[in-house]
Amino acid sequence: MEKKITIAIDAMGGDNSPNKTIEGLSIFLKKNIQKKDFFINLYGDKNKIEPELNKFSISKEFIKVVHSDSEVSDDETPLTAVKNSKNTSMWNCIHSQKEGDADISLSAGNTGVLLVISRMILKMMSQLSKPALAGLWPNRNGMNVVLDLGANIECNDDNLVEFAELGSALYKSLYPHDKPLVSLLNVGSEEIKGTEILKKAYRKLNDLSDENNFIFKGYIEGNKIMDGDTNVIVTDGFTGNVALKTAEGTAKFITDNLKKSLTSNILTKISLIFSYFALKKFKNKLDPRKYNGAIFLGLNGPVVKSHGGTDAIGFYHSINLCYKIVKGNLLDQIRNNLDHLDNEKQ
Amino acid sequence: MEKKITIAIDAMGGDNSPNKTIEGLSIFLKKNIQKKDFFINLYGDKNKIEPELNKFSISKEFIKVVHSDSEVSDDETPLTAVKNSKNTSMWNCIHSQKEGDADISLSAGNTGVLLVISRMILKMMSQLSKPALAGLWPNRNGMNVVLDLGANIECNDDNLVEFAELGSALYKSLYPHDKPLVSLLNVGSEEIKGTEILKKAYRKLNDLSDENNFIFKGYIEGNKIMDGDTNVIVTDGFTGNVALKTAEGTAKFITDNLKKSLTSNILTKISLIFSYFALKKFKNKLDPRKYNGAIFLGLNGPVVKSHGGTDAIGFYHSINLCYKIVKGNLLDQIRNNLDHLDNEKQ
Repeated sequence: MEKKITIAIDAMGGDNSPNKTIEGLSIFLKKNIQKKDFFINLYGDKNKIEPELNKFSISKEFIKVVHSDSEVSDDETPLTAVKNSKNTSMWNCIHSQKEGDADISLSAGNTGVLLVISRMILKMMSQLSKPALAGLWPNRNGMNVVLDLGANIECNDDNLVEFAELGSALYKSLYPHDKPLVSLLNVGSEEIKGTEILKKAYRKLNDLSDENNFIFKGYIEGNKIMDGDTNVIVTDGFTGNVALKTAEGTAKFITDNLKKSLTSNILTKISLIFSYFALKKFKNKLDPRKYNGAIFLGLNGPVVKSHGGTDAIGFYHSINLCYKIVKGNLLDQIRNNLDHLDNEKQ
Repeated sequence: MEKKITIAIDAMGGDNSPNKTIEGLSIFLKKNIQKKDFFINLYGDKNKIEPELNKFSISKEFIKVVHSDSEVSDDETPLTAVKNSKNTSMWNCIHSQKEGDADISLSAGNTGVLLVISRMILKMMSQLSKPALAGLWPNRNGMNVVLDLGANIECNDDNLVEFAELGSALYKSLYPHDKPLVSLLNVGSEEIKGTEILKKAYRKLNDLSDENNFIFKGYIEGNKIMDGDTNVIVTDGFTGNVALKTAEGTAKFITDNLKKSLTSNILTKISLIFSYFALKKFKNKLDPRKYNGAIFLGLNGPVVKSHGGTDAIGFYHSINLCYKIVKGNLLDQIRNNLDHLDNEKQ
């Protein structure tokens, strides 16, 4: 029989938790209960978690609650976290992975603290110089993996090459039937464009490009990210963070304006009757909750960060992402890719 | 009597020119003819321009055509431009500004070449270390000035401070009744976030902030650019270029999906009858042609770059931008701001 996947969840992180996290879990269980190939460990305050489990009628067949007295506060900074976060629900959640009790961890709590304690507890893979935060970003044909989204605000060419290996490993674990097509984010598509760091990374990625690992497609500009001609987009954490947030802000600005326009008078309200299902489909396709979950890559175990402000549906998508990542053997994919990188260097 | 504003236009640059540029001019003339405070010099092939002037019934009262045999090709690179672009319509257009024959230049031609020859002919203002490319970006309450958009892919803290002075001068020339509120684009809003360069620029901008010049509002994240709490956004050319193009790509992705959804079946098509005017207003508000025109700042004379692929309406908006910039005394505003910077340094 196949080994069960164990997901460790910090039930206390993010707004409106553990209500949100447990409701998200109940959605995941409903959709996946027939699979019977997973187990969930919930970390947090038993006295708050148990009533929520009852509320959503969650049986204990696939879950276990591990009590923690404290939780990481939103005000905590990465600098104070190490001292203050020991034995919090987040800490215990990540630590269980080190002990071999889980394959992956998930939290909607404080991002800075999560990155710091994950790195401290799980340690970086020995071949790597920096870990990276990767996210999913919709495109015309499906989904991009974009990294780094802010774990490293300054990167050299070797970091970018490592991100390409990490990102394509993640892509292969999520979409085993697709080939990872890697692009480097830049201000133009011509070879002469960009910083010296980008030009060096370009040459190295060109040398590494092969059918077994990833195909390097060259530079990509910001306006082409969603065109679907590529599916792993590599950049430093500063640029990636600004690009992702700018896209979020633009999407919000447009949909807010659209909403205002379509409810501005009685005629437009009538129009909504006729376009209701089409607009619902439109909204569904662009629903940011479906892409909820940034993946911290490069440690001896994957950690997923859910958006703190998401709701139960968003949190469900993060649990599902964890399940798919482990099912797709992310860690093996990363090891394979890093071996490929090592062989190339020799 | 007030001195007339003279705008030098490269009639040959961009797709479908001079048809587009002359049609854009005809729209500008129709809307502004009663003002009688401007004059337009058109640079390009007389034999192609004259028939277009006739087609749009443009009288010669406010315009003059200056013949050029050649034009800058789209394939030209900044490296070869200096040798090959002499006496092209673009060159002659910019050069007329140096001779005192125009207050501002406008071209929809090759961006790289325009930046190189503008800088060569007009020279940088002596107090500055780098020129910058600024653009307009809509927000909830009106318009942002964002710079740099790609003239300088690597910048230090002094460059960013200069961009803040240039950008707020531009903002004051365009919106004389508003106060420029300057923000620095970063990956977080807390003071500890970002690169050392950003932290140094933050401290310098904080010291420079005053009621007469600009108010410094601190860091801004990508998702807040369109919130309208600030109106001058400062960043290096790499980040600015990626952010702007990512916003364009996101807007296109969303509106393409919306269009597809709203024309997917007979019911949604009926809905369009009821929402037609509201959606037209929505489209109008977000129409990128209204923000067409990037402003090259820091030279001894402003140069405006229209998008090469825009149409006559987009080009009209660029001409209008030129008119407003000169009317708002951009060069004086810049000189004032740079004096303020010099005084602070002493």
